[in-house]
Amino acid sequence: MGDSMPKDEFEWIQQHTPAHSHQKRLEEGIGDDAAVYKASSFFDEVVCVDTMIEGIHFTKETMAPYDIGYKALAANISDLAAMGAEPSFYIVSIAIPPHWEDDELSGLYEGMAELGDRFEMDLIGGDTVSSAHELMMSITVIGRVETGRRLLRRNAEPGDVIFLTGPVGRSASGLKLLLEKGRHASFSSIEQTLLSYHQRPEPQVKTGRLAASLSARIALNDISDGLASESFEIAEASGVQMHLEQELVPVPDEFAGYDPAEYWEWMLYGGEDFELLGTVEAGSWEKFQRLSEAAGINVTNIGRVEAGTAGVWLHNQGDTEALEKKGYNHFSGKEGQG
Amino acid sequence: MGDSMPKDEFEWIQQHTPAHSHQKRLEEGIGDDAAVYKASSFFDEVVCVDTMIEGIHFTKETMAPYDIGYKALAANISDLAAMGAEPSFYIVSIAIPPHWEDDELSGLYEGMAELGDRFEMDLIGGDTVSSAHELMMSITVIGRVETGRRLLRRNAEPGDVIFLTGPVGRSASGLKLLLEKGRHASFSSIEQTLLSYHQRPEPQVKTGRLAASLSARIALNDISDGLASESFEIAEASGVQMHLEQELVPVPDEFAGYDPAEYWEWMLYGGEDFELLGTVEAGSWEKFQRLSEAAGINVTNIGRVEAGTAGVWLHNQGDTEALEKKGYNHFSGKEGQG
Repeated sequence: MGDSMPKDEFEWIQQHTPAHSHQKRLEEGIGDDAAVYKASSFFDEVVCVDTMIEGIHFTKETMAPYDIGYKALAANISDLAAMGAEPSFYIVSIAIPPHWEDDELSGLYEGMAELGDRFEMDLIGGDTVSSAHELMMSITVIGRVETGRRLLRRNAEPGDVIFLTGPVGRSASGLKLLLEKGRHASFSSIEQTLLSYHQRPEPQVKTGRLAASLSARIALNDISDGLASESFEIAEASGVQMHLEQELVPVPDEFAGYDPAEYWEWMLYGGEDFELLGTVEAGSWEKFQRLSEAAGINVTNIGRVEAGTAGVWLHNQGDTEALEKKGYNHFSGKEGQG
Repeated sequence: MGDSMPKDEFEWIQQHTPAHSHQKRLEEGIGDDAAVYKASSFFDEVVCVDTMIEGIHFTKETMAPYDIGYKALAANISDLAAMGAEPSFYIVSIAIPPHWEDDELSGLYEGMAELGDRFEMDLIGGDTVSSAHELMMSITVIGRVETGRRLLRRNAEPGDVIFLTGPVGRSASGLKLLLEKGRHASFSSIEQTLLSYHQRPEPQVKTGRLAASLSARIALNDISDGLASESFEIAEASGVQMHLEQELVPVPDEFAGYDPAEYWEWMLYGGEDFELLGTVEAGSWEKFQRLSEAAGINVTNIGRVEAGTAGVWLHNQGDTEALEKKGYNHFSGKEGQG
């Protein structure tokens, strides 16, 4: 959620990251999609928190309360998926302003419960307070991954295959429609599909679990801020170059009637698709692809990792474009530093 | 934090508590100070979240940013202590409004770090977003307790000894001074002591750990909302009566010059002392007291558990007062349902 940071996120994180750790069981602290700590000889626990504020991360104009709850939990589950973890529990902390009615709040919790039940997660706690102005939700999710199998952004190496679990950009296009027309307008069937990718994104837990089960070196990240921004996170964490082939990046079928200049902006810099972006050592790519196909999961090779100064490039028939490290501030339309 | 609930807390919790659980490893879900789940044959993980909002739970008029951070983490560690757990990790989610300066934010994190370091906890993640109006902090803490040793509110039985780890009411008296004079006023040395109990409360981890190590049936709760309210929580969770002896309840030395009518209000209904209130089976009380003394910990017998309709009574030389199930809304002065 770097687009709503009050300060430079990188500097802020550096400033508050402890220089050393006390707990021997800590495996991964600040810096990836989630933290990881040892719990037994078989499993590591994986935990992360995501906070969403009305007017910044969502509005009732574009999302029904049910969808707001659904999507808030989806975003958190997606972070677990990006670590290769299976989801276990969630905890909801909520600050409620006077303009939220009881039935809207019930909708919010029902949206979370639908997704939580589907992933066999239990709601195990929370805190509920009043707020003067905006609704604020902070969700903690806890999952686990087999010891040593966590999938980190820093795992990429030159020669790796870059893969993506599905087309991106649909969430950003859906949001654009919602901001233009409001969620109660009438939409074509293609438009409704695009809206659904924005309102009820699907966390890619199955792919994360398959990747974790593979005995291969894999880096993994979820697309919360756009393909470019997430590619940069892997590039910088691993100290590598990410070279994407434009003709390999899958374009959503629904974009057929749209201007390519517009939809490539959505695909590269629009966020909240919650597909997974990763790299896998080249020798394991075929096996990963074969097992994915057998499991009914889609993974697409979209490029190659190379050595050199960290960065992200998009290649298209001999042309090369250096991608920008930016996200997209959905409600202000302003670009922010990723 | 029942005093800032927008709805009836009990009803709200009932409404959103799942009827059944998916995860076999879940030991305790919603309903106690923290949730508990199995992680290995030796340890259960313990987790809880607490959310604090500027103007409701704290203000810069009564607390320095350093103290706000310190106390926010202390309140969370106290929930772990009340389960008998040892603290391991914390995660901070923060929404920052424009009127908070960088050096104030640094102070906030330094206050947390001091306490976190003291309890050998690692800051392992977080989320930072902008907020339009108030500063909001949501802290997740994670600890662990030996399998089967967690200390629950529902463990009390008739005949148990009720104990308290230290005098209560000082936090509420300190807050009263701060609200009257502001934190930059000059205070007597006794007043300064009272302020420090409000601004930098000490979570009773050592006592919680000792209680968990005892092979005895113990119920435990931390005093966040006042002695009466926390006694009610044990009474209702265990289906018992809590009978407190007024002359056994320790009165802080600092209250010597105050009106007893005023300080008993602080002691019974003032919150945020973060002492522990518990019950222990009568046959283990002497051992608990002896081991506490050896460990330099104070535990005081303040009453007895009896059978009957759940409730809390205060006895004083033949007089009996039924205590009210209420907390105290610090900033409005309004009483709220606990």
